Amino acid sequence: MDILDAYQSCPRLAANTLMRLGRVTTATLAMQLLKRGLRHVWMQGPRPFDPNFARFVGEAFTFSFLPMREDLSTLESYSQPGSLREGIEAMRPGQVAVIDARGEAACGTLGDILLLRMRQRGVLAAVSDGAVRDVGGVRAVGLPVFCAGAAAPPSIGGLVFANWEHPIGCGGVTVLPGDIVAGDEDGVVVIPRRLADEIAEAAEEQERFERFVIFRVSQNDPVVGLYPPNEAALAAYQAWLDAGEPEA
Amino acid sequence: MDILDAYQSCPRLAANTLMRLGRVTTATLAMQLLKRGLRHVWMQGPRPFDPNFARFVGEAFTFSFLPMREDLSTLESYSQPGSLREGIEAMRPGQVAVIDARGEAACGTLGDILLLRMRQRGVLAAVSDGAVRDVGGVRAVGLPVFCAGAAAPPSIGGLVFANWEHPIGCGGVTVLPGDIVAGDEDGVVVIPRRLADEIAEAAEEQERFERFVIFRVSQNDPVVGLYPPNEAALAAYQAWLDAGEPEA
Amino acid sequence: MDILDAYQSCPRLAANTLMRLGRVTTATLAMQLLKRGLRHVWMQGPRPFDPNFARFVGEAFTFSFLPMREDLSTLESYSQPGSLREGIEAMRPGQVAVIDARGEAACGTLGDILLLRMRQRGVLAAVSDGAVRDVGGVRAVGLPVFCAGAAAPPSIGGLVFANWEHPIGCGGVTVLPGDIVAGDEDGVVVIPRRLADEIAEAAEEQERFERFVIFRVSQNDPVVGLYPPNEAALAAYQAWLDAGEPEA
Amino acid sequence: MDILDAYQSCPRLAANTLMRLGRVTTATLAMQLLKRGLRHVWMQGPRPFDPNFARFVGEAFTFSFLPMREDLSTLESYSQPGSLREGIEAMRPGQVAVIDARGEAACGTLGDILLLRMRQRGVLAAVSDGAVRDVGGVRAVGLPVFCAGAAAPPSIGGLVFANWEHPIGCGGVTVLPGDIVAGDEDGVVVIPRRLADEIAEAAEEQERFERFVIFRVSQNDPVVGLYPPNEAALAAYQAWLDAGEPEA
Amino acid sequence: MDILDAYQSCPRLAANTLMRLGRVTTATLAMQLLKRGLRHVWMQGPRPFDPNFARFVGEAFTFSFLPMREDLSTLESYSQPGSLREGIEAMRPGQVAVIDARGEAACGTLGDILLLRMRQRGVLAAVSDGAVRDVGGVRAVGLPVFCAGAAAPPSIGGLVFANWEHPIGCGGVTVLPGDIVAGDEDGVVVIPRRLADEIAEAAEEQERFERFVIFRVSQNDPVVGLYPPNEAALAAYQAWLDAGEPEA
Amino acid sequence: MDILDAYQSCPRLAANTLMRLGRVTTATLAMQLLKRGLRHVWMQGPRPFDPNFARFVGEAFTFSFLPMREDLSTLESYSQPGSLREGIEAMRPGQVAVIDARGEAACGTLGDILLLRMRQRGVLAAVSDGAVRDVGGVRAVGLPVFCAGAAAPPSIGGLVFANWEHPIGCGGVTVLPGDIVAGDEDGVVVIPRRLADEIAEAAEEQERFERFVIFRVSQNDPVVGLYPPNEAALAAYQAWLDAGEPEA
Repeated sequence: MDILDAYQSCPRLAANTLMRLGRVTTATLAMQLLKRGLRHVWMQGPRPFDPNFARFVGEAFTFSFLPMREDLSTLESYSQPGSLREGIEAMRPGQVAVIDARGEAACGTLGDILLLRMRQRGVLAAVSDGAVRDVGGVRAVGLPVFCAGAAAPPSIGGLVFANWEHPIGCGGVTVLPGDIVAGDEDGVVVIPRRLADEIAEAAEEQERFERFVIFRVSQNDPVVGLYPPNEAALAAYQAWLDAGEPEA
Repeated sequence: MDILDAYQSCPRLAANTLMRLGRVTTATLAMQLLKRGLRHVWMQGPRPFDPNFARFVGEAFTFSFLPMREDLSTLESYSQPGSLREGIEAMRPGQVAVIDARGEAACGTLGDILLLRMRQRGVLAAVSDGAVRDVGGVRAVGLPVFCAGAAAPPSIGGLVFANWEHPIGCGGVTVLPGDIVAGDEDGVVVIPRRLADEIAEAAEEQERFERFVIFRVSQNDPVVGLYPPNEAALAAYQAWLDAGEPEA
Repeated sequence: MDILDAYQSCPRLAANTLMRLGRVTTATLAMQLLKRGLRHVWMQGPRPFDPNFARFVGEAFTFSFLPMREDLSTLESYSQPGSLREGIEAMRPGQVAVIDARGEAACGTLGDILLLRMRQRGVLAAVSDGAVRDVGGVRAVGLPVFCAGAAAPPSIGGLVFANWEHPIGCGGVTVLPGDIVAGDEDGVVVIPRRLADEIAEAAEEQERFERFVIFRVSQNDPVVGLYPPNEAALAAYQAWLDAGEPEA
Repeated sequence: MDILDAYQSCPRLAANTLMRLGRVTTATLAMQLLKRGLRHVWMQGPRPFDPNFARFVGEAFTFSFLPMREDLSTLESYSQPGSLREGIEAMRPGQVAVIDARGEAACGTLGDILLLRMRQRGVLAAVSDGAVRDVGGVRAVGLPVFCAGAAAPPSIGGLVFANWEHPIGCGGVTVLPGDIVAGDEDGVVVIPRRLADEIAEAAEEQERFERFVIFRVSQNDPVVGLYPPNEAALAAYQAWLDAGEPEA
Repeated sequence: MDILDAYQSCPRLAANTLMRLGRVTTATLAMQLLKRGLRHVWMQGPRPFDPNFARFVGEAFTFSFLPMREDLSTLESYSQPGSLREGIEAMRPGQVAVIDARGEAACGTLGDILLLRMRQRGVLAAVSDGAVRDVGGVRAVGLPVFCAGAAAPPSIGGLVFANWEHPIGCGGVTVLPGDIVAGDEDGVVVIPRRLADEIAEAAEEQERFERFVIFRVSQNDPVVGLYPPNEAALAAYQAWLDAGEPEA
Repeated sequence: MDILDAYQSCPRLAANTLMRLGRVTTATLAMQLLKRGLRHVWMQGPRPFDPNFARFVGEAFTFSFLPMREDLSTLESYSQPGSLREGIEAMRPGQVAVIDARGEAACGTLGDILLLRMRQRGVLAAVSDGAVRDVGGVRAVGLPVFCAGAAAPPSIGGLVFANWEHPIGCGGVTVLPGDIVAGDEDGVVVIPRRLADEIAEAAEEQERFERFVIFRVSQNDPVVGLYPPNEAALAAYQAWLDAGEPEA
């Protein structure tokens, strides 16, 4: 029995929610979440491993590790039932691996071989608050990876694999299986599943307004009164919208 | 499926193992564990809350928390199925509550009321790598508590309760339900259940030898050659044993 | 112009608010603040220096330090206009000194002489997220002091004094001059001034209910359904109140 | 009354001081400051956001934030008198924004819109010991930015804006309004205003000597006796100078 | 060849220097060192293990540890030539063991047996920036011990012993063999040997003046103008001295 | 007398060991070391300064620093006997400078001039758990440098040089003079000298097997049963070997 159970009855996402979420920045998503009272939804630690592969949005599939203990963190544990390798085989296309490594950055929670297998299974990205290993190989796989750096030792050098698809903490944020995670160069944001539809809509509107703001500031307007907008700015925005937003 | 499953078939403890473990220090236990290759078994973080209640040994019953998330860390969560309160009702006499608070020391994972309930149920001690709250009340309960200090905010100020009786990390050490935990002023040591019997025996022998060492050092012998002992020291120890160890 | 200005028009406290706040624990205050959406009001860092002088409640008078810079952190700075010493002379009886030391615990922000002067002026307590120095002397003064430990070097060893009665951060919490601060063994809680009256009332009611809970748990009731209370528990509480709460 | 007052009477800079400071590295400036007893003048935390925009020198205009408090860190605070937005309008061309974010790297103290407005006003650079947000937009603005990374949440996710043009701490260094700040790939150095002229001159001379040292080491001379120079090395340097320094 | 060599020719201490240093607080010593430009002489980390045994002054005898490496941190290393045990036999009466444990607080650098041997050899105190183990035994030895807490694992659980009587870092302060170390409840201060005589004299004078200050503040004088003293305060101090300092 | 003495009798490396070690990744080396019980051999802190110069393997020549102390960390110390500059002249071609900077990242342990001199002497690389300074110059030298970032202040801003060719800690790993160090984008691994030959051989075999694994995973095989291999996978590997490994 755990907090996951409360979650299971959540509704399906609207058809275009993931696509819409993929068009906005995590900065916008974080602001929309804050407007709904959610401040602790941005992960500290995971950074884009390769700026060329730094954008994703998808459903979280969770993994978790525990601290290294010499009798558990054995080479044999890699082949035991319930290993990370088995968990990867349970992932579905379109999902994102989110790994609770307890912030341990002195060993790699993923390497090139496991990432390659994830890519083969249609996984969209991997997020870990620990490290990855074999940087050259990881780059070759080409999957978006967000992590706390690189480290040569294998996972059993500092951790022991625990389980998958349980609620986890990653980068100081609680993630439930099925939550939506989105990443770009500003890092990774977690969107509680039941909020994903409304966040997607509000985020698009926010970015539309910010294009107006940038247009005005580029013309040397001060930000005071414009962002956030006072009544005059709102009217000007409406006029700008009515005139048809210019192409970016 | 998790690492717990590998553990379930572990044998029962010998009848006097817990009693013997209770007669030795955690310093001795840590040395015996190190001799068996286990270095990562001492918790960083949990310290005795009250030096007058700083000794315990018992079977671990695990709880875990995850980072605070405003939509989950609600007052309502205290009453939901799967709450910490329900978990306490699943504990058995002689067990020790071991709480994975992710090292978050800015909110209390336990307060006087929950500790009082534990005491009523025959729980021997509580260990957390987070804080406790309501220090005055906690002291009044009189249960041994090892934690990372005191904090006024409730658990939902910085955490959300996740589950019980799963493998956890506490103070950087992995604890499986059923492992043996022992605490004194040097902190808390975790003994993998399958090692408890042999550790108990070896620990008693180690402390017997150290009484001999202290006796000799008190008589102005140097430590070199004595601790660890060379052959001459071992012979002297045997003679000391044969003469019958004096009363402490 | 700073955030202080928004604060200046806050109403006076009700006559008995400080007295009522002084009768409850900071654990209770933190819960009441959380119920009003305030989670970041407990200071990390300041702990009671002496458990015998660990309770206070009063109005905050703020001081702040900045990082040591060799050309500013001079012996001469102690005598300059705008020094900490002058600030102490601006304090009024019943106030509490709250010091932003930027968490620097390697030098003392206060010593026995300045604390003695504060006591002479009717100051109730001193709170710092830095250290104090001259522990023996500080203990002799007998004023409640909450701090991050002791350190031998003077303040100019690691800091430079900046100013007083500006908004500060202390232990990770923003404090405005005039806010109410309360301390006990669980640490220090900041109550925004405009909330002090309602918090005082709600806190007293909470502690009344918790006395009922402790009474019931002492009689071996489980906590589930009692704390938080379901309808039956609320009815029982009402009956307990009607029967007249027994003396503590 | 604060330490700023002592500063106000400082002399104007010599006409070419800023230009000369802009020709030397921060490594050289840090050495010259150390020779004058100033070791705590290099900021820990702020790193160049974009190596293509990593050099600046200018007069500091200071801003400061305090820790997030839910009743103060509101969306409304963006429009209040005394907001960060108003502060930006008080900046003058040639100044550098230096932001005290208390090292909080989990929210952005600046984003693309505010940076664009700064650029429009002739601001030379922005330095923060917190994060920036909306990395793509920030890069597009093209202003030199030194910060502690990127974060998706807005400033009110982890901070509250306090004020501008007061003394601050940034990256562990105290900065007074009007101090000179210089940045390159080695980070940011603060030069107390009254020292700027003499530092500029001495720094140029130091770099001239180091060009000689590199010339000699490139010809396989050992560093011992050369750097720092003994008498023979000084004579050789003089001869090298007399011969006319070759073009770089 | 190391920095120790520069030190070896330092003069002997005046006959009463250690006695005089033992009569003043570390707060006073730190102030006198700061007046001579030394700010980095107070150790972060080591705290008095037992407040009843929290004062000492003596000559430093240094030990150092390095990080644990499984092939070096063996049980056998305890008996090898060059072990910590051999180093203890090289200590002389009146010395203080100062241990560089690299701040590693998860294993004990000293336990009761080694401390007992030190006491037998006339050692005055032990200072470590790591932990001690076997708290009960350590307390029984009764030697002043300053450390970073208690930990059950032995030293080889987290460290490997390196050597003795080389320059070390302890608690962030460089200590040369033969430097003077002094400890009380404010922690441990290191006095470069060549400064010990003059510091002893100046420290006594400082404490005499502070007794005058406390006398005046107790009579409700403000601190401004008194501490530091203006000319009037200096004259009053002289008069107070001429009248003969009252008994404490 | 120190732990170095135990080391001196170690055998010479096989002729091709360094070449073989240079062909494998540090990830592979860390796995082989772990298989031999060595988990604490990867440095936390040092990262490749320039990804274009991020590979090396060689024999460690050690240097160490201690914390800054104002009376020792002087400009004069640069010219004293036993300085870092003298140590560099003691290095031999093919060695790697490994610097114990105690993790102090606020000053540079090396700059362009000293690195240039190292390169002239045939040094292969430099590793420090502190920072380097003068980034532009360092890049120009073109020597592989692994460090904890860049900082403008010179070494005496935060450290004092201690000695060379003693055992050190670097990035939390103990390094003995003569140990083998290897670096790539995953960081730096230390190989105890007596293990270097067997590690070289086993590492090559491991990478051969992993090429087979990647080949199979690329053909959509799951990782379970393959990596680590079960009997069927081992047989397939043998067949793959017998068929002649295809060119990479």
